[in-house]
Amino acid sequence: MATFTICCLPGDGIGPEITTEAQNVLTAIGRQFGHTFTMTDEPIGGAAIDTHGVPLPEATLQACRESHAVLLGAVGGPKWDALETAIRPEKGLLALRKGLSLYANLRPAVIFPELKEASYLRPDIVADGVDVLVVRELTGGIYFGEPRGREGEPGQRRAMNTMVYDETEVRRIGRLAFEAAQQRDKRLCSVDKANVLEVSQLWREVMNELAPSYPDVTLEHMYVDNAAMQLVRDPKQFDVVVTSNLFGDILSDEAATITGSIGMLPSASLGDEKPALFEPIHGSAPDIAGQDKANPLATILSVGMLLRFGLGLEQEADAVDAAVADVIAQGLRTGDIAGPGEAVLGCRAMGAAVVDR
Amino acid sequence: MATFTICCLPGDGIGPEITTEAQNVLTAIGRQFGHTFTMTDEPIGGAAIDTHGVPLPEATLQACRESHAVLLGAVGGPKWDALETAIRPEKGLLALRKGLSLYANLRPAVIFPELKEASYLRPDIVADGVDVLVVRELTGGIYFGEPRGREGEPGQRRAMNTMVYDETEVRRIGRLAFEAAQQRDKRLCSVDKANVLEVSQLWREVMNELAPSYPDVTLEHMYVDNAAMQLVRDPKQFDVVVTSNLFGDILSDEAATITGSIGMLPSASLGDEKPALFEPIHGSAPDIAGQDKANPLATILSVGMLLRFGLGLEQEADAVDAAVADVIAQGLRTGDIAGPGEAVLGCRAMGAAVVDR
Ligand SMILES: CC(C)[C@H](C(=O)O)[C@@H](O)C(=O)O
Ligand SMILES: CC(C)[C@H](C(=O)O)[C@@H](O)C(=O)O
Repeated sequence: MATFTICCLPGDGIGPEITTEAQNVLTAIGRQFGHTFTMTDEPIGGAAIDTHGVPLPEATLQACRESHAVLLGAVGGPKWDALETAIRPEKGLLALRKGLSLYANLRPAVIFPELKEASYLRPDIVADGVDVLVVRELTGGIYFGEPRGREGEPGQRRAMNTMVYDETEVRRIGRLAFEAAQQRDKRLCSVDKANVLEVSQLWREVMNELAPSYPDVTLEHMYVDNAAMQLVRDPKQFDVVVTSNLFGDILSDEAATITGSIGMLPSASLGDEKPALFEPIHGSAPDIAGQDKANPLATILSVGMLLRFGLGLEQEADAVDAAVADVIAQGLRTGDIAGPGEAVLGCRAMGAAVVDR
Repeated sequence: MATFTICCLPGDGIGPEITTEAQNVLTAIGRQFGHTFTMTDEPIGGAAIDTHGVPLPEATLQACRESHAVLLGAVGGPKWDALETAIRPEKGLLALRKGLSLYANLRPAVIFPELKEASYLRPDIVADGVDVLVVRELTGGIYFGEPRGREGEPGQRRAMNTMVYDETEVRRIGRLAFEAAQQRDKRLCSVDKANVLEVSQLWREVMNELAPSYPDVTLEHMYVDNAAMQLVRDPKQFDVVVTSNLFGDILSDEAATITGSIGMLPSASLGDEKPALFEPIHGSAPDIAGQDKANPLATILSVGMLLRFGLGLEQEADAVDAAVADVIAQGLRTGDIAGPGEAVLGCRAMGAAVVDR
């Protein structure tokens, strides 16, 4: 029995509607287990640009810092695509990650047994399911490296970015990945491009130095081009994948896609201190925004991760995961995961179904 | 009727055996069409490290420069993985690309109708086939950007690479991609990460500036994480994809994989001057090297590309492509593309079958 402050950032597109359903689930968990969740909504992304002129208002960052955990919907949309780069909605997300020092992004790519046919891969490849956890470094690498920028007159324009890591950054994400592997099938695959990039050579070296401290985990290295192949050929070979910011951006989306149900996949972004950030991996889907068509399950499962990793409430997290597994087992489907001829629920009805469990 | 000098670089692993079969096909084409192909074998990669101490001996580069076209097998293998980075086999390939100014890498990912079941994707997704041409920038970007390297004492180690493009580099690869699209379905998708990287913003800007010169081609932009998703979800949406060196490395391998027959896929690396370089996209497969198990068809189709793009011999190229299509249609298969229960040919027998046509 405790009181927790949860900072909610609905954001853009379908963000508000999926966040509402997730909040209802959180309220239901509070009722059932006797906790109080104090939830505040703060603006981020395009919504914040519209009202405050910036994608991450100082007050939003402050409210996050004062909370026990942060729940995000989604940011971005065509409305803000024409804006100059400095005030794009995505900048709000990058600034939030950096502002809260969330250096580890955990993205599980799992196939629910009942949703196997939704996978884009050949049935025999996913027959035994898929269960990959991508651990992506989130506050370093080429996303934040300096120097960066453009120079030169028209005719001589030139632009550059810097991919950089120091050993401290690699070590802390490496440790977290080894620990995650210890909780799972004890296989860790570190992905880099060490046959070309010096920054990858340091990455690989530090991963190798960590290995003896985790004798129960098998460490393997793979080049990023090969990893992009192997995820399609045989995703079962992976347990935990650890990689840098840019490679993780690409590979975690690829891993999520092969499950065929990205509307079902949550993510957690963690640092050494509280609060952590939880969000669905799908985007803001502006084409279906406000139409009660979105799948709220990824955001609801993000609440599950929030309870588990953000607040340490294991039982409560299990209850959320079980309720979602239950609605899926009962055949309830939103449009994105419905097979041909299956009845389709709206966002609100699906949220309510989970609350009922 | 003419005489052509072809510089052959068998390289490592299965490289020598597949190159031999491709050379036999070239000889047969010469006989049929009355050309003389003078072929010389030069060392590259691990083989060159063993005999010359460097992965690209000056004599090899010189022989390439004096030829009309270059045919490469494959480089690399576990034997040289322990070597310090400066003398890795892969460095030979990078130095060759740079040395010959081969700034454009063309990688078609095609599904042969008879090999549809080999695709790793769900049958309904590939029902209408897949036909994507990835145009990858090959001599710039983070592969060659300066500054690069490592610094710092143990405990403070730090490494960096620079991703850099100037507008000239983007424009020449962009032109080539637009022209390739004009020869095909007139759809060009430029892939970048312009929501995060300045270098991608310049890339996108230059692509947009080129578009009016190719009014018959539809230009679209896509973020690299989304492209990694869309290739799995719906590869049919792509005709020509143009992208930078690193993104192209990842996406061309992903695109090739979804066809399920990377043993069938050739590639061409072109510059503004001769000679161009032709090679299979698969690697050196050290595990099956020397066992007469490799699939020589990707290298033979690379000979097709060599005839077409390297020497301008369209009819001769058509003859090679037709012979390969024919052996596939007749049900001849090497181990990598054989379905369950299908008879399997060795590398030499498959090569001979193509020569017979
Ligand atoms: C919106 C964008 C900046 C972001 C990223 O590249 O990190 C997104 O793709 C993600 O993966 O969360
Ligand atoms: C071997 C390696 C350096 C090379 C690359 O990364 O370019 C390879 O992966 C390729 O795609 O040709």
